[in-house]
Amino acid sequence: MTIYRDLDTSARILLGPGPSMVPPRVLGAMAHPLVGHLDPQFITVMDEVQELLRFVFQTQNRLTIPVSGTGSAGMEASLCNFIEPGDSVLIAVNGYFGERLCDMAGRYGADVHRLDRPWGEVFTVEEIEKALREKPAKLVAIVNAETSTGAWQPMEGISDVVHRQGGLLVMDCVTSLGGMPVKVDAWDIDVAYSGTQKCLGCPPGLSPLTVSGRAIESLHQRKTKVANWYLDLTMVEKYWGDGRTYHHTAPISMNYALREALRLVYEEGLQARFERHRINAELLWNGIESLGLRHYVSREYRLPSLTTVVVPENVDEVAIRRHLLDDFNIEIAGGLGPLKGRVWRIGLMGYSSSRENVTLLLEALKQLLGRQ
Amino acid sequence: MTIYRDLDTSARILLGPGPSMVPPRVLGAMAHPLVGHLDPQFITVMDEVQELLRFVFQTQNRLTIPVSGTGSAGMEASLCNFIEPGDSVLIAVNGYFGERLCDMAGRYGADVHRLDRPWGEVFTVEEIEKALREKPAKLVAIVNAETSTGAWQPMEGISDVVHRQGGLLVMDCVTSLGGMPVKVDAWDIDVAYSGTQKCLGCPPGLSPLTVSGRAIESLHQRKTKVANWYLDLTMVEKYWGDGRTYHHTAPISMNYALREALRLVYEEGLQARFERHRINAELLWNGIESLGLRHYVSREYRLPSLTTVVVPENVDEVAIRRHLLDDFNIEIAGGLGPLKGRVWRIGLMGYSSSRENVTLLLEALKQLLGRQ
Repeated sequence: MTIYRDLDTSARILLGPGPSMVPPRVLGAMAHPLVGHLDPQFITVMDEVQELLRFVFQTQNRLTIPVSGTGSAGMEASLCNFIEPGDSVLIAVNGYFGERLCDMAGRYGADVHRLDRPWGEVFTVEEIEKALREKPAKLVAIVNAETSTGAWQPMEGISDVVHRQGGLLVMDCVTSLGGMPVKVDAWDIDVAYSGTQKCLGCPPGLSPLTVSGRAIESLHQRKTKVANWYLDLTMVEKYWGDGRTYHHTAPISMNYALREALRLVYEEGLQARFERHRINAELLWNGIESLGLRHYVSREYRLPSLTTVVVPENVDEVAIRRHLLDDFNIEIAGGLGPLKGRVWRIGLMGYSSSRENVTLLLEALKQLLGRQ
Repeated sequence: MTIYRDLDTSARILLGPGPSMVPPRVLGAMAHPLVGHLDPQFITVMDEVQELLRFVFQTQNRLTIPVSGTGSAGMEASLCNFIEPGDSVLIAVNGYFGERLCDMAGRYGADVHRLDRPWGEVFTVEEIEKALREKPAKLVAIVNAETSTGAWQPMEGISDVVHRQGGLLVMDCVTSLGGMPVKVDAWDIDVAYSGTQKCLGCPPGLSPLTVSGRAIESLHQRKTKVANWYLDLTMVEKYWGDGRTYHHTAPISMNYALREALRLVYEEGLQARFERHRINAELLWNGIESLGLRHYVSREYRLPSLTTVVVPENVDEVAIRRHLLDDFNIEIAGGLGPLKGRVWRIGLMGYSSSRENVTLLLEALKQLLGRQ
């Protein structure tokens, strides 16, 4: 008989692109015994999760829920519910997750048009307006915080040009929500999705999603069934709405965790939380420069939650990461796609964003780079 | 400012159709700090989860994994990966989840044919053979344990008639896996999916899935992309295979929980576990009859994990359930679809299947029914 030992993985210092570290209170919430997914007590939990998600998304949208899958499921829900075969879709691509949006939208029969920018750069409103003049789109998707590059996309003004030609605006805020301002209502976003495992400080497993009244109207006017059962919001909204109609069994323990993580965000306050993320990011950025390393993204568009550092010539980037993990118990990540081997990705998200973590990482990098 | 209190839901006695109660060791595993989804330590956890899933599915299938969603996501993964538009699909429908299979298959463009049986009854091999003679099918889907009716579908011989005409056999074992024999290899099943929250005693959030070599071959021979990104096994198999290629962030804590739940199954042993489920079910069945109540499914095809009891005339079925919950802290469920208001559904699954739970439920029912 094989011996399966007690779970004994390390309590890692998680400074990669997610999952980030999870506060003890959130871990404790998952150890709480379960109730059923239609139990009146769980309905209360659902209501509170919805309220707290609205708080962090800065929205009044009724349909604000956690999708029962990781961030990619939220991305797919944001597309499949609003695309019918043949619909024209514009996707702004300046990184790995823009590419993923194109792949997904294509699977739902969209006529996908790309607006490309080099990885690490961002788009102007004028560029998007011009692309829509050339080819109007029913849906426009853009990434507010590109986890593959660390670039921050300003959102002001984009919804105007999208709405003027009758489309919906979908925003990826997987790496920004809870770590910097995400103003769904002020920016007039129609659909925004995120993950729980980044700046919200909750384990991966759910995807916060918020949908505007305009987008719900579009959903209800579909001529075809949503081509995805699990993520079909016409059914999911009935479980999260007044009817509480059974669709799929909600992940109870993950919802306990998300409630506790959001409660921590609420207690800290959005402004204080954003300020903490900014201060620790600046500490990191200055330290990186002091080590003689270069940033991949210009300061103006740099995410406080995710920093990309250019790997110097003659440095073995994989070896540095292995030593960080083995000798210092710290996880950071390498690059994706064209940035593979060219950058390190350092996340300072949620509970991971602390002065002690930045200080330790900088000292560890100093020792490891000095040794090379 | 709204006050969000500490999580304080009851430790319910969960005797509905799932989620079932979760053993303390599994709850504890979720409180374990996280590592990253590409951490070598997590790769070991993944390997162990796969080994233990093969043990409980009684299979050697390499592609045996937890899908990152609840049981319904596993159901959808079992269809969308093996259906291309226009494919002929036969679905055996004798309950709510057979209906769901039809809905899902239709969304992927299948030419869906139904083989119907009254809810609570099961199919013979001859009936399936006859249906396939009339209309061959690339894929046949059937439910081994119908959670809506409590009926157990024997599987011997079905794969022969499906394979003889060149199709794949998909089996739903959401409510049987871990509670009664599920012999994927002996029954020559091509795709089987389950949930974690029933007889495996793990919270909802993942869906165990196993895929035969024959089905993988069919997957690799597709002419079109899988019409679902999140559940696309051509990509998911690369993360769970040797390459460990990033697809989506795995739900770390849920995998910790599943590993611990499966370790408990392994320690108890399959035969002992099935025997425990059977003994406690018989205790319930005899007790139900002693109370003068009728079973909905004939004894021969009754699931040990899920018992449907006919609500007597002049009894308020909702009131009984409310009193069970409010006065005895016990959850059972009502019926779905045509069985709404006509049956109670009592689950004895995983950790919930114990003599003390059956004894308490029978006494509570006796008191509540006597009062009416």
